[in-house]
Amino acid sequence: MENPKPKKDLTLDPENWDQMRELGHQMIDDLFDYWQSIRDQKIWKPIPAEVKDFLDQPIPETGQDPNEVYEDFKKYIFPYNKGNVHPRFFAWIQGTGTPLGTLADLLASGMNPNTTIGEHAAMYVDRQVVNWCKQLMNFPSEASGILVSGGSMANITALTVARNSFGEEKIRQRGLKAASAQLVLYCSVETHSCIQKAAEIIGLGTDAVRKIGVNDRFEMKVNELETQIQSDLSQGLLPFCVVGTSGTVNTGAIDPMEELLAISRKYGLWFHVDGAYGALAKLDPNYSERLKAIEAADSLAFDLHKWLYVPYEVGCTLIRDAKKHREAFAITPNYLLQESRGLSGGLDSINNYGFELSRGFKALKIWMSLKEHGREKYAKMIAQNNRQAEYLADLVNQHPDLELTAPVSMSITCFRMKRADWDEDQLRRLNREILLRLQEEGIASPSSTILKGKYTLRVANVNQRTRMKDMDLLVSEVVRIGHSIHTI
Amino acid sequence: MENPKPKKDLTLDPENWDQMRELGHQMIDDLFDYWQSIRDQKIWKPIPAEVKDFLDQPIPETGQDPNEVYEDFKKYIFPYNKGNVHPRFFAWIQGTGTPLGTLADLLASGMNPNTTIGEHAAMYVDRQVVNWCKQLMNFPSEASGILVSGGSMANITALTVARNSFGEEKIRQRGLKAASAQLVLYCSVETHSCIQKAAEIIGLGTDAVRKIGVNDRFEMKVNELETQIQSDLSQGLLPFCVVGTSGTVNTGAIDPMEELLAISRKYGLWFHVDGAYGALAKLDPNYSERLKAIEAADSLAFDLHKWLYVPYEVGCTLIRDAKKHREAFAITPNYLLQESRGLSGGLDSINNYGFELSRGFKALKIWMSLKEHGREKYAKMIAQNNRQAEYLADLVNQHPDLELTAPVSMSITCFRMKRADWDEDQLRRLNREILLRLQEEGIASPSSTILKGKYTLRVANVNQRTRMKDMDLLVSEVVRIGHSIHTI
Ligand SMILES: Cc1ncc(COP(=O)(O)O)c(C=O)c1O
Ligand SMILES: Cc1ncc(COP(=O)(O)O)c(C=O)c1O
Repeated sequence: MENPKPKKDLTLDPENWDQMRELGHQMIDDLFDYWQSIRDQKIWKPIPAEVKDFLDQPIPETGQDPNEVYEDFKKYIFPYNKGNVHPRFFAWIQGTGTPLGTLADLLASGMNPNTTIGEHAAMYVDRQVVNWCKQLMNFPSEASGILVSGGSMANITALTVARNSFGEEKIRQRGLKAASAQLVLYCSVETHSCIQKAAEIIGLGTDAVRKIGVNDRFEMKVNELETQIQSDLSQGLLPFCVVGTSGTVNTGAIDPMEELLAISRKYGLWFHVDGAYGALAKLDPNYSERLKAIEAADSLAFDLHKWLYVPYEVGCTLIRDAKKHREAFAITPNYLLQESRGLSGGLDSINNYGFELSRGFKALKIWMSLKEHGREKYAKMIAQNNRQAEYLADLVNQHPDLELTAPVSMSITCFRMKRADWDEDQLRRLNREILLRLQEEGIASPSSTILKGKYTLRVANVNQRTRMKDMDLLVSEVVRIGHSIHTI
Repeated sequence: MENPKPKKDLTLDPENWDQMRELGHQMIDDLFDYWQSIRDQKIWKPIPAEVKDFLDQPIPETGQDPNEVYEDFKKYIFPYNKGNVHPRFFAWIQGTGTPLGTLADLLASGMNPNTTIGEHAAMYVDRQVVNWCKQLMNFPSEASGILVSGGSMANITALTVARNSFGEEKIRQRGLKAASAQLVLYCSVETHSCIQKAAEIIGLGTDAVRKIGVNDRFEMKVNELETQIQSDLSQGLLPFCVVGTSGTVNTGAIDPMEELLAISRKYGLWFHVDGAYGALAKLDPNYSERLKAIEAADSLAFDLHKWLYVPYEVGCTLIRDAKKHREAFAITPNYLLQESRGLSGGLDSINNYGFELSRGFKALKIWMSLKEHGREKYAKMIAQNNRQAEYLADLVNQHPDLELTAPVSMSITCFRMKRADWDEDQLRRLNREILLRLQEEGIASPSSTILKGKYTLRVANVNQRTRMKDMDLLVSEVVRIGHSIHTI
């Protein structure tokens, strides 16, 4: 025989199972200690040069004891976390996660099913969670959906379906070059950059994206939208999609959903809603009416790792017309033959609905989380973040040295320190310095943005650990730091 | 004040931390018990109707005790796993995972950093792991790369860069409609369907994909490729990319890399390698020479959740020209202002290199795994899978009732039971029945494919738990089941 059996087969399983199990227990304890004391820890720490050096070494040739690997983790990685698990993390729009969400990730990784194809439990959990997403959003049960890595993927997935569903152009098969004219997509200047990126990736190009102006509340101007559509039509272009944002990343603004829906209907355009951040605000009674029209959208993208507070990564795309959804993506190669029995039986393969073939079991963390808390508690939690943002705005309004830089919408509060005799550039430098010191002193992590030319602090709150008193602290620290800066 | 502070702030953190911690420990024990006894368990079990019903209930309105949620998991989900953690899982191409890989996922989820932007340790780990990926593949250190969810995303990321880098067409900005002619991409009939899907998504269309024929070993015919390129050129089309596969999904075939590289150079085309499955075979000395030309490719996609045995999901794209890579994706919106200090400082944001903005900390499991085992052990492990495939082929060749249906390449062995007087259709039904019973009896999970019209069993082995004796068992069980079937 040419290939004699080796005496001992190699495996990557632990040489010492007991030791590895012990290590797992140690990690659980270390994580719980971390979470339970997070409020007392600095939110952020600079990374020492020595750590950066360590994280710049070449690939290890030989192995190391797992306990040592974990020691390295504890020394070089764990202490320098980003901080979005902390109660005063308000930068960008990043969810906190929850302990049970993380334990679900442990189980998902341990079972390790490729959740795309085949007859096994993860497929049913995935389907159930997509159904729960429809129920959260009041989408019809015949709609289809898919869990993806986040808002960017959720948006591009929807826009691909929108593009392929356009007219009689057979774009999936023939490509955009063969289309009868340039396709055009509409969004606002405040729309998230991932929409432009999606348009570029799916071959429409930056030029195909019309960024419509916004009003004082940063909401898309509907008149301008309609004028632009008419002008594009008169030039022989092919308007195909309107993107409305439910909660812009800058200020939480909500585009006028009813009007966008009506215009989309009038011109036969696909109405897509980017609700990556704010679709879940629907659960807050204060917002449910304004977001009602989402339910009638052709497609909706939203994130679970933001305002459902599940750990990274997971977002969701819902598509009203399941057939169009499937037609945009389904290909069945030979080696994926579907069976009526055995492992290859079961539900429709999930790769028929998106970009990915292999997929992890990201549904489990949503499944366990929604069971743990139930829809009602999420509704209250989301509402609380909105009330915290309003409370923060009240504090800002009450303070003579602070000013709001945008109306509060959803859970985003934009404000800055003002100073009577300072010009815009000085104010920019002042507020930037306040921001950096807040972070460097480990107190809180807002981020910044520029609104109508004004540099501003931006507090985006999708944090399940934040308490009202954190807003008091934030304001008092901004004021303290600001007052300590006399020249800049 | 309009928003009085509530008496008690809501949180999604556990009401009872000790109970949740205890639950974490319980999960660790249950997972280790599962892994340690996996060899003695059935690889697959049919899912009872009652379980499917349970996994079809509407969204929970109110919460449930976390222990109960876990009991539901243990009753309805855990027992019906897909099986790719099992030593005799050989379906599709799905990695096994490892215990430390899963523990790393626990830590990553527990830290929960959004690994895209900002100054924190996960960013450095991600960069280091991308550098290790370059070192694994012998790519130049100036090359760029990004970790993505898997092979499909790795391929589409590379093809987007290839498309945008084409000529002076400014495709990113102007879109494909404005290109001077239709762009054309070349691959073989055995190329993975995700390449066609990518071409459709990025707007080229199915029609832009030329599927070149293959030889007896399922490798792309270079002559046919060149003829096709010339014919497309003469018709005024724009050839832009050749995709070579290092390890086809059907049979592990390797396209002639040197020749594809040479043709790409000759016609000024982008040379992309889909090594989702088999790029890592480079580490096996028996394959390193044949895969040498990968190192000169313009881009390379490969999966870590397949042949690096890390848990789902993670793949990698490497791009030789980092500038082209960044130019395909970088957009910097206001709210992502990069700073020299604080949380917003640090490395170049990772969203400048791919589709996604939010990203989890998937680098950690690779980091911990490569440190645990070192490159050398992975090389041996991969080589062992290849030897196991060859050993299985030897067993098949030695058995009068079995035949190989393709030459063994890498770690895929395709074979079937033959029977002197049966026609193709009977053989299809016979082998299909063998496959289904292997799964239904919980013995082993190969999958199936069709090769040159022949239905065949397909054993794809990227399994770190498989031993040589599993191949003996597989063959004897195939023969046993086959012989028990007299008519079909
Ligand atoms: C409105 C909006 N759309 C899309 C995105 C992108 O989502 P992700 O970061 O999950 O890709 C974001 C992220 O902040 C967002 O706020
Ligand atoms: C050759 C090849 N390319 C691409 C893919 C797709 O990779 P993924 O399933 O990780 O998306 C596969 C998956 O089996 C493959 O074998």
